Amino acid sequence: MQISAIYEPIQEDMVSVEERIRSLKQSAPPQMADLVEYALRDPGKLLRPAITLLAGKSFRYNQQLMVTMAVAVELLHIATLIHDDTVDKAQVRRGRPTLSSVWGQGTAVLVGDYLFAASAELVASTDEIRVARNFAKTVMAISSAELEANYTSFDWRQTRERYYQRIGNKTASLFVLATQSGAMLCQAPEAAIEALKYYGYNLGLAFQIIDDVLDFIGEADEMGKPVGHDLSQGTLTLPAILFLERQPEDNPIKHLFANQGDPDSLRLALETIGNSSIIQECYDIALEFCSQASRCLEGLPPSASQRSLDSLADYVLQRKR
Amino acid sequence: MQISAIYEPIQEDMVSVEERIRSLKQSAPPQMADLVEYALRDPGKLLRPAITLLAGKSFRYNQQLMVTMAVAVELLHIATLIHDDTVDKAQVRRGRPTLSSVWGQGTAVLVGDYLFAASAELVASTDEIRVARNFAKTVMAISSAELEANYTSFDWRQTRERYYQRIGNKTASLFVLATQSGAMLCQAPEAAIEALKYYGYNLGLAFQIIDDVLDFIGEADEMGKPVGHDLSQGTLTLPAILFLERQPEDNPIKHLFANQGDPDSLRLALETIGNSSIIQECYDIALEFCSQASRCLEGLPPSASQRSLDSLADYVLQRKR
Repeated sequence: MQISAIYEPIQEDMVSVEERIRSLKQSAPPQMADLVEYALRDPGKLLRPAITLLAGKSFRYNQQLMVTMAVAVELLHIATLIHDDTVDKAQVRRGRPTLSSVWGQGTAVLVGDYLFAASAELVASTDEIRVARNFAKTVMAISSAELEANYTSFDWRQTRERYYQRIGNKTASLFVLATQSGAMLCQAPEAAIEALKYYGYNLGLAFQIIDDVLDFIGEADEMGKPVGHDLSQGTLTLPAILFLERQPEDNPIKHLFANQGDPDSLRLALETIGNSSIIQECYDIALEFCSQASRCLEGLPPSASQRSLDSLADYVLQRKR
Repeated sequence: MQISAIYEPIQEDMVSVEERIRSLKQSAPPQMADLVEYALRDPGKLLRPAITLLAGKSFRYNQQLMVTMAVAVELLHIATLIHDDTVDKAQVRRGRPTLSSVWGQGTAVLVGDYLFAASAELVASTDEIRVARNFAKTVMAISSAELEANYTSFDWRQTRERYYQRIGNKTASLFVLATQSGAMLCQAPEAAIEALKYYGYNLGLAFQIIDDVLDFIGEADEMGKPVGHDLSQGTLTLPAILFLERQPEDNPIKHLFANQGDPDSLRLALETIGNSSIIQECYDIALEFCSQASRCLEGLPPSASQRSLDSLADYVLQRKR
C-alpha cells in the first residue's frame, strides 16, 4: 500500500502540518531564521505527525489542536536528530549535509535547543498537562539512550534485550508520545489510550529494526547516508548482535571494534551479514513487533484511521529508506 | 546584608531545594548518574530558586509545589550553562573544569538535554500550563541569545540597546521565569504577577551587568574563571561598549577583534577600562536597573519576603563572584 493511500483519512490535516512547519521560520528570531529553514527544509514522510493524527482521528478530533501536537512531535524529532548528528559528528542526513557539518557543532547545539523549546511551546499550548509530562519523559528517554549508545560504542558485548531497551528509549518513545498524545487530546477512553501507546511502542521498535537492517543492505543513494555507517561508528545493532550470537569466535566485528574502523573487517562483517539468513531473521523479528502493534488495535472501534494504522504496520516493513 | 539574612524567610524551603537537587542523581538512569552528580555538585548561592520562592512566599504558598518549581528553574539554569560551555568550548566554570572539558562535547550536549527535560518534567508536574508555556519561551529566548552572541563575536559594532536585549534574553528571561512562576503558582493577583515579572527582568539585567563588569575587574581566583575572558572570546559587554562609544578611534578592542586574541591589545583594553570611570558608569547603570526592580515591589503587600527581594536588589550590586 502506498503511503498516500494510508494517509488518506488525514490528508487535509497533513497539508496543514506541512504549512505550519514551513511557517516556523517566519516566527523564528532573525538570527535563527535561516538555520530553522535549513533544519525543516526536507520534511520527508512525516510519519510521526501522521500517527499522531491517526491515533486521534476516530475520537473527538479537534483539527487545530491535533495539527499543533503533530507539529510538536515532528519538531522534537528534528531537534533530537540535530543533537544526535552533532554528538556523532555525522556529515550527511537524508542525503544532505548535516546542520552541524555546515554551521559547526556550537550552532547546531543551539538550533536543537531552540527547536526543543519550540516543540515544548506547542505542547504547552495544547493545555493538556499530561501531554507536557509525557513530552518531558520522552526527551529524558532519548537523551539517556543516546548517552548509553555513546558509552557502549565499540563494545561488542551487548545483548538483544539491551538493544530493545535502547531503541525503545531512542526511537519508540517518540512514537509512543505521538500515539498517546493524539489519543489523549481527542479524549479517547483510557483503554484506547493504552492500546495506542503500545501500538506506538511496537511500531517504533519495528521501525528502528528496519532502519538498522537497511544500514546493512540498503543502497547508499536511497538511504541518504553511507551503508555500514552504524558498524563503522562502533554502534551495535540487531543484525550485528545476531551475528555475534551465532559466531562468537573469530568474528570480524570483534576485529573491527578492537582496531576501531579497520576497513577490511568492516567489509567482511557487512558481506557476511548481508549474505546470511540474519537479515531475514531481523525481518521476522520486526514482523513480530508489527503484528504485536496490529493486535493492539483490535479493541478499537473500526474506522478508516484504525485501518491506516494497521496498514502502517505493514508499510514500515517494506520501506527502503 | 548577608545572603543568609536575605534568605531567612525561605530558609527551610532552601534546605528542601538543596535536598531535591542532590536526590536527582539517584533518580537518573545509571549511565547519567555520575554526570548529573558532577553537574549538580557545587550548587552555589541558588539565587534563582531563592527568588522563585520569595516571589510566592507572601501569597498562597504551597511548599512542595514551590520547591518543585524552584528546582526546575535551577535545573534549567544548569542545563543552559552546560550547553553554553559546550558551545564556547569553555574549560573552567565556578573554579571547576566544565563538564564538556572533562567528558567531551557530545556527552555535555546529552547531559544538558537530559537536565532540560528533567526541568520540563518538574514544570509539568506543577499542573500549571501557563508556567509550562513560560518555560518553553524562556528556553527559546536563551538559545536565540546565545546564537546571536555567537554570530556577533569579534564584531565591535554593537549598541547598548542590542546588548540590553541580548542579556534580557540570555539572563533576565530566567529571572522572569523564576519570579513570574513563583507568583503564578501561589495564585498572586495578576497585578502582582506583572510587578514580580518586571522585578525579575530588571534584577536579571543588573545581575548580568555586574557579571560583565567583574570579568574586567574581578580576581581570577574569586571568579572561578580567567579575567578578561569575554573580551578574549570576542564577546562585547557593557564596559567594552562604553569604551568604544567614548573612544571610537584607535581603540585597542578594534585591534583585538581584527587580530583575534592579540594579547597586547587585550591587556591594553583591560587596563584602560579598569582604570577609567567606565566601571563606575556601569555600576551606575546596574544601580538604575536595581532601583527599577525595587520600584516594581512597591505595590506589593509589605512582608518579610518582599523586603528580602528588595535587599537582593542591593545584594547583586555588591557581589564579588
